[in-house]
Amino acid sequence: MFKLYYAPGTCALASHIALEEAGAAYTTERLDFRSNQQNSPEYLKVNPKGRVPALVTDRGILTETPAMLAFIAQSFPQAKLAPFDDAFAFAQAQSFNSYLCSTVHVAHAHKMRGHRWATEESSFADMKRKVPDTMGASFALIERDMLKGPWVMGEQYTICDPYLFTLALWLEGDSVDLADLPKVADHRKRMSERAAVQKVLAAEKS
Amino acid sequence: MFKLYYAPGTCALASHIALEEAGAAYTTERLDFRSNQQNSPEYLKVNPKGRVPALVTDRGILTETPAMLAFIAQSFPQAKLAPFDDAFAFAQAQSFNSYLCSTVHVAHAHKMRGHRWATEESSFADMKRKVPDTMGASFALIERDMLKGPWVMGEQYTICDPYLFTLALWLEGDSVDLADLPKVADHRKRMSERAAVQKVLAAEKS
Ligand SMILES: N[C@@H](CCC(=O)N[C@@H](CS)C(=O)NCC(=O)O)C(=O)O
Ligand SMILES: N[C@@H](CCC(=O)N[C@@H](CS)C(=O)NCC(=O)O)C(=O)O
Repeated sequence: MFKLYYAPGTCALASHIALEEAGAAYTTERLDFRSNQQNSPEYLKVNPKGRVPALVTDRGILTETPAMLAFIAQSFPQAKLAPFDDAFAFAQAQSFNSYLCSTVHVAHAHKMRGHRWATEESSFADMKRKVPDTMGASFALIERDMLKGPWVMGEQYTICDPYLFTLALWLEGDSVDLADLPKVADHRKRMSERAAVQKVLAAEKS
Repeated sequence: MFKLYYAPGTCALASHIALEEAGAAYTTERLDFRSNQQNSPEYLKVNPKGRVPALVTDRGILTETPAMLAFIAQSFPQAKLAPFDDAFAFAQAQSFNSYLCSTVHVAHAHKMRGHRWATEESSFADMKRKVPDTMGASFALIERDMLKGPWVMGEQYTICDPYLFTLALWLEGDSVDLADLPKVADHRKRMSERAAVQKVLAAEKS
């Protein structure tokens, strides 16, 4: 039995969907970001970084989306969420997820979390203004070179798909026009039609 | 036979050391960042992101340090550079490397690469001033919670070690005092004594 700590609208959605797709037995615990619950003494015992997601397992707690996604896939091999029998294909999936984590998610975070990297209000405003460019450029690269279609890795649905979907949901809020990204838009639509995705989105909203 | 694209002083050092530790057959190709070779039309064909490292394999090109490190470990299982027989331990190693990639490396990048996320000189200066804090805080967390010792994962040397070593080499330049980080300092010294590390550092300098 797993327990997922999440907050709605965050990158934790990727792991939440993956748990559902895997057919895992899991519970969830929602954090309230408005009251800064991610930095409460209780939660810092779960994840000293003060971030979601975090996954409680019977072996210990895991953090970091790419690592959690691979662990979920590996724990439920029958769901075939990652190509573990092919080291190169697995590395390609991990490379895609690492790009989302280290570059795309980070670009987005400069909109609301500028205080992580700077101190002045003028810098926060400057960073915020650049987010449409950086998110637009990242997704243009994904559209052109990375998303094989119909799923990220091609015919096989993998742990790359809920992660891409999660970040693609941020595009309108980041003023990136989906009309310039037809493959990403098709991917988002295809994801929204999956039963697991609908169930998880409803649970995060309720 | 692999080919590694790198530039001296960058995160590519982690993959370079891992190749050497694995006993891989590989060649290297050095990019000149002063002439912006990472954004030359030739290199953008190798890595459209315009970054190092990139690893050319007979199956295709891989980018993103955490994915490359895991692939190198998996390609040379006899070197035992990752705990592939234990999904949870492997996830912990990937989690550590994902933290380095998405948080620690990104914190450091705000010193010289502020233009990625902002436009004004005043923002670049502001970001630069905060790097000692953000790098200091990240490494304090590594020191307190993550580095088991003597190696990152404990008794077994893994792909986490060259990656931590690579980022720890940036600490003085980022004005973080190693005296506050005895375990990190010990790890760095222990790494410097390895034959593979000495060979790679000499090759990158020559
Ligand atoms: N590298 C981490 C990043 C986690 C992260 O930044 N999560 C955000 C939500 S998307 C968060 O918890 N932010 C809370 C805060 O900054 O206080 C991962 O990919 O899991
Ligand atoms: N997420 C990538 C980041 C790669 C990266 O940012 N590399 C830097 C060197 S440490 C680079 O190539 N910078 C060149 C530039 O920004 O022009 C990874 O971990 O491999």
